Amino acid sequence: MAGGKGSERPRYLQIADELKAAIERGDYRPGDRLPGENALAPQYGVAVMTARRALRALTNEGLAESRKGAGVFVQAFRPIRRRGIQRLARDQWGAGKSIWSADEDRPLTVDQVSVQEVVPPTHIAEMLDLGAGETACARSRRFVLDGRPVMLATSYLPYALVEGSAITQADTGPGGTYARLADLGHGPVRFREEIRGRLPTAEEAATLGMSPERPVLKMCRTAFDAQQRVVEVNEMTLDSASYVLDYEFDA
Amino acid sequence: MAGGKGSERPRYLQIADELKAAIERGDYRPGDRLPGENALAPQYGVAVMTARRALRALTNEGLAESRKGAGVFVQAFRPIRRRGIQRLARDQWGAGKSIWSADEDRPLTVDQVSVQEVVPPTHIAEMLDLGAGETACARSRRFVLDGRPVMLATSYLPYALVEGSAITQADTGPGGTYARLADLGHGPVRFREEIRGRLPTAEEAATLGMSPERPVLKMCRTAFDAQQRVVEVNEMTLDSASYVLDYEFDA
Repeated sequence: MAGGKGSERPRYLQIADELKAAIERGDYRPGDRLPGENALAPQYGVAVMTARRALRALTNEGLAESRKGAGVFVQAFRPIRRRGIQRLARDQWGAGKSIWSADEDRPLTVDQVSVQEVVPPTHIAEMLDLGAGETACARSRRFVLDGRPVMLATSYLPYALVEGSAITQADTGPGGTYARLADLGHGPVRFREEIRGRLPTAEEAATLGMSPERPVLKMCRTAFDAQQRVVEVNEMTLDSASYVLDYEFDA
Repeated sequence: MAGGKGSERPRYLQIADELKAAIERGDYRPGDRLPGENALAPQYGVAVMTARRALRALTNEGLAESRKGAGVFVQAFRPIRRRGIQRLARDQWGAGKSIWSADEDRPLTVDQVSVQEVVPPTHIAEMLDLGAGETACARSRRFVLDGRPVMLATSYLPYALVEGSAITQADTGPGGTYARLADLGHGPVRFREEIRGRLPTAEEAATLGMSPERPVLKMCRTAFDAQQRVVEVNEMTLDSASYVLDYEFDA
């Protein structure tokens, strides 16, 4: 036993580190096939199972993907660039466009949607300043790109505020929820986005179809109207391998 | 074997999920002691080793911390709220304040710093528009709060631009790097921050003193001067358990 740092990190993770470095250097390009477990094992002098675990560490992180019978390939999926500030500008949703269209050319679609009147979790009720027994309209959606689930979002709005509007329907119409809030005299004038990183819960990983060992970005957006009232709280869960968040602003 | 989703997730992670849910509900508060492995094992009908792995999953994620001989406690560290836009406003660094003072009352300190003239990585050279053989001033720093490492940052600036200024010294003086760039006629007028999440490399985890199983947030900040020139690229690695990123902006 040599001791020291090298021996503390499991061998399969050391091999995974070397493969990652090779990908970052460009030795393997997006879409390239990585060496298989039967090639890696003799190369590193390890068991085939160890080589397999190294490759699985890469697929778990979303850096590579396994294709049945064909091998393990460097991830070719180009992450979504999400422009935080430009996409929420009023001239986006004000003109009847979806805020998702401000992100880029590849359109996100919603493949699962549920809209319900609910008693929201305590922290949401507090953020929306709801009294005891007051309900929220909860809009839960799953977003996919090229069939790949990339984000879950649950948006909460005070039910009394949006009752009778298209916000309570699956299809909110041109410009979406923010255009409808504007119709009601409560269009957002200011946003806050709070971002954290963590590992997904079992349910999040299952719904996003991703490994529970790959991180998610948690984003909580608060929308304020001109009277400083919180009119929406949107809790989002983003697959970290699918997104780059991008904020541009003046000094 | 029952099959189905429940049996796919390892038992220790199911127990960890239940403990996390209890923490989120507030059954256990920050600083509270969690049940030990000897209490959890009979409660869930599992081996002590399985209960120990469940607790370790929580400490790895940064939700709890182990204190030698005393047990495992719900994390009491209050994450740093980093206000992306306000902190970089010119009236911060323009007035000679550190941009870190815009975050909150608890001051971050730098406990490791190195300043070097380097040939930067290719992607940095491209972003800074450096020609072949042109060098950068690389400022690497580790930030700590209450003795806890929370962030690594390496800032790159064109060496020819900053040569002879305090930017090439460990102490950049009042207002820091941005105030010195302004002295040189290249003060930043616009910023871009790009954020991703991933697991740390072995080196990042070691330098931040955190578990390699806890995610980091990777942030890349680009600073532009009035001529649209990129005057700085800052690559940051943030412990995800230590930070909430916060962006506020108008619609």
